[in-house]
Amino acid sequence: MPPSITFASRATTTGRARLGVLTTPHGAIETPQFMPVGTQATVKALTPGDLRAAGVQVILANTYHLSLRPGHDRIARLGGLHRFMAWDGPILTDSGGFQVFSLAHLGKVDDDGVTFASHLDGSPQRLTPERAMEIQEALGSDIAMAFDQLVDATLAAGEVADAMERTHRWAERCLAAHSRRDQALFGIVQGGVDDALRRVSVAAIAGMPFDGIAIGGLSVGESKDQMAATLDVVADALADDPRVRYLMGVGAPPDFFSAVERGIDLFDCVLPTRVARTGQLWTSVGKLNMRNARFLDEPGPPDPDCGCETCRNHSRAYLAHLFRADELLAYRLSSLHNVTYTQDLMRRIRTGLDDGSYGTLREVVMAQYGRSGTRSDKASVTGR
Amino acid sequence: MPPSITFASRATTTGRARLGVLTTPHGAIETPQFMPVGTQATVKALTPGDLRAAGVQVILANTYHLSLRPGHDRIARLGGLHRFMAWDGPILTDSGGFQVFSLAHLGKVDDDGVTFASHLDGSPQRLTPERAMEIQEALGSDIAMAFDQLVDATLAAGEVADAMERTHRWAERCLAAHSRRDQALFGIVQGGVDDALRRVSVAAIAGMPFDGIAIGGLSVGESKDQMAATLDVVADALADDPRVRYLMGVGAPPDFFSAVERGIDLFDCVLPTRVARTGQLWTSVGKLNMRNARFLDEPGPPDPDCGCETCRNHSRAYLAHLFRADELLAYRLSSLHNVTYTQDLMRRIRTGLDDGSYGTLREVVMAQYGRSGTRSDKASVTGR
Repeated sequence: MPPSITFASRATTTGRARLGVLTTPHGAIETPQFMPVGTQATVKALTPGDLRAAGVQVILANTYHLSLRPGHDRIARLGGLHRFMAWDGPILTDSGGFQVFSLAHLGKVDDDGVTFASHLDGSPQRLTPERAMEIQEALGSDIAMAFDQLVDATLAAGEVADAMERTHRWAERCLAAHSRRDQALFGIVQGGVDDALRRVSVAAIAGMPFDGIAIGGLSVGESKDQMAATLDVVADALADDPRVRYLMGVGAPPDFFSAVERGIDLFDCVLPTRVARTGQLWTSVGKLNMRNARFLDEPGPPDPDCGCETCRNHSRAYLAHLFRADELLAYRLSSLHNVTYTQDLMRRIRTGLDDGSYGTLREVVMAQYGRSGTRSDKASVTGR
Repeated sequence: MPPSITFASRATTTGRARLGVLTTPHGAIETPQFMPVGTQATVKALTPGDLRAAGVQVILANTYHLSLRPGHDRIARLGGLHRFMAWDGPILTDSGGFQVFSLAHLGKVDDDGVTFASHLDGSPQRLTPERAMEIQEALGSDIAMAFDQLVDATLAAGEVADAMERTHRWAERCLAAHSRRDQALFGIVQGGVDDALRRVSVAAIAGMPFDGIAIGGLSVGESKDQMAATLDVVADALADDPRVRYLMGVGAPPDFFSAVERGIDLFDCVLPTRVARTGQLWTSVGKLNMRNARFLDEPGPPDPDCGCETCRNHSRAYLAHLFRADELLAYRLSSLHNVTYTQDLMRRIRTGLDDGSYGTLREVVMAQYGRSGTRSDKASVTGR
C-alpha cells in the first residue's frame, strides 16, 4: 500500500533549515510552507480563486467547527470537504483538540476523551480519539491530526506531564482507529516548555508510525525565547527523523525564521487574516494599520512591493476609507493582501535557503517587524 | 463645445420601449440599463473586477454619503471618484436629496436649501443646489443629478406641489451653478402620483437644458399600479423628447418590464445587493433564500442557468452554510450573483426588444417572480 503522502527534503547551509516537497493526493506542497486557516470551510472573505492567486498551496480547516456546523456527515454526503468548499488543493484538518480546550465550555477530561458544551448552542458534545478520526475521515482531508490534550505550557509540571501522557495514549488510539488510506495522519508532540517532557514526548510520538510530526502546545503564551529553546530540544530529539515537521499556531512574520532554522517545514495560523480584518496590513515597510488617520490621504498602494489585486488596484486612502465606513470590501482586500504577503514571505524564505540569501532576507524582515511584530501572535490562542 | 454625453435611441415594437446607447466620458452604456449602487464608493462586498465580470456598465454613487465620509474634497485631491474607487467605467452620482430626506435627521427645509444633522455623528450640515453641484463636480462623476426635494407621494397634494415647485426652482439654480463641462447634468421630475402635478413637472424640467430626465418620487411606497399610471403620464408629457430617461430607485426584476415599456432607459436600486446580504438570491427559478434549511443539503448551483463565479464554483449547500455561519464570503458570493442576474436580465430585455422575443421573456420572468417579487422593493425607501 503506497503512503498517502510522501516527503522529500534536503538540508541547507542555514542551521537545521531544510527545503522539501510534500506530495499529497491533492497536489504537492513546497516547504517551508504556511497554511492559511479556513475555520468554517472558508478562509474568511476569500474565494478559492483568491487563494490560488495569492500562491496558497495548502489550507487548514477546523474539525471542531465543521463537526458542529454544518456537520461532517453532511459534508461527506455532499462529496467531502474539498468539493464542499470548492478547494481542490491539499487540506489539513486539525483534530479539534485545540478548540475543545480553548473555545468550547469544557466539561470534563477523562482518559477516554473530552465532554464539552458547544460554543454555538451549549449542546453537550463528546470528542474521543476515535471520534476525531471518524470526523476527519468524513471530511476527507489530505492530512488528519491526532487528537491531543492541550494545556497551558505555564501550568505546573505535573499537569503538563499528565496531559502529555494522555496525548500519547490517545495517539496510539488514533493510529488504531484511523482507516482511510488516502489520508495521512500526523502525531502531535506535547510537553509544554519542559525540556525533559519534550524529549519524552518526541520519543513517544516519533516512535509511532505517523506520517508527520507536529509540535503542539507552543504559541500559547510562552515567550519567544522559550519557544526557540523548546524547538531546539525537539529538533535535537528528532535528530534525522525524515518526516515532515509542523509547528502549530505560528504565523507572525518574524517568528517563521527562528522556527525554519530549527527544521520546521509547515506552519498555520489565523493571524494574517484575523489582523487584516482589524486593518493591520503586513507590508515590505512593516505593519501598517489602515485605521490610522494618516492613510486617509495617501494615494499609493498599501504595499508598493506587492503584486496582489489589492495593491495593484487600490490605494491606502481607499482602504482607510473602507475600514472607517465598515465596508465589507475592507476585510476582503486586506485579507487578500496579508495572505499574499505571507505566501510571498514563505517563497522568499525558500528561495533564500536555496540561493544563500536567507540571512539577508532575515535581517530585512526582522528590521521591518522587530520584536514588536511578535506580540500579536498571542491572538492565536483563542482559536487559530 | 461638445456635450459631455450623447444619447442615441430607436423605438421598438414593444410599447414605448426603446433601445439606445448613452456615451459618456468613461465609456458607452447600452440601454435599457441597470446601475448597481456603490453608496460609499464601493458596491458592497464587490471589487471593480467583479462588477466588470458581472457585465456592469455604469454604477451609481451617493453624494450625501461621500461628502460626509471620506469627504468630496479629499476624493478630489486623490484624483476623483473614478480613481478613488478604481472603477474606470461611467459613474452617476445622485444629488444627496434622497438621503437628506430619508436618512439624515432633517432639520429645516427653506427655499435656499436644507439643514440637517449627519447620520454619522449628528454634526450640522447644509445642502443647497449650489452645494450639491460643487460636491458632484469635486467627485467628478460622468453624470450629476439636480438637487431635488423628495416627499412622500401619499402626502396631501399641497405639500407635494410645494416640494415640486421648489424642485423646479432648485433645478434652475443647479443648471446655473453647474460648470464642469465633462460632466452631464440630469433634471428630476417630481409631482408624486398626481397626474396634473406630474404634467406640470415634466413641462418645467423638460423645458430646461438638462442632458437627461429623471423621474423621482416613485418607488417610495405607492402601489405598482400608481407607479405605472404615473409613468404613462410622464411618457405622454415627454412625448418625443430625445433625452435619456432614468427611473430612480427601481430594481426588482418584475418592475423593470412595466417601466421599460413606458420608455425608461436607466434604473438604479440597492435591492440586488441588499437582499443578497440577507440570503435572497434572484435566479431563473425565482427567489431563493439561502437561509432556508432545505438548501443545506442541495449540491447544485444557486442558479443552474447562471455563469457567475458563485454559480460556477459553489453549491446551494455551501452558501446556506456560509450564511448560517455568518461568514463574510456569504455576502460576497450572493452579491456577485444578484448583480450578475440583474445585468443578465437587462441584457435579455435588450435582446428581447431587438429580436421580438421580449413578450416571452416578460412572461417567463413574471411567472418566476409573480406579484410577490414586487413587495421587497419597499426596502429601497431607506436608502437606495
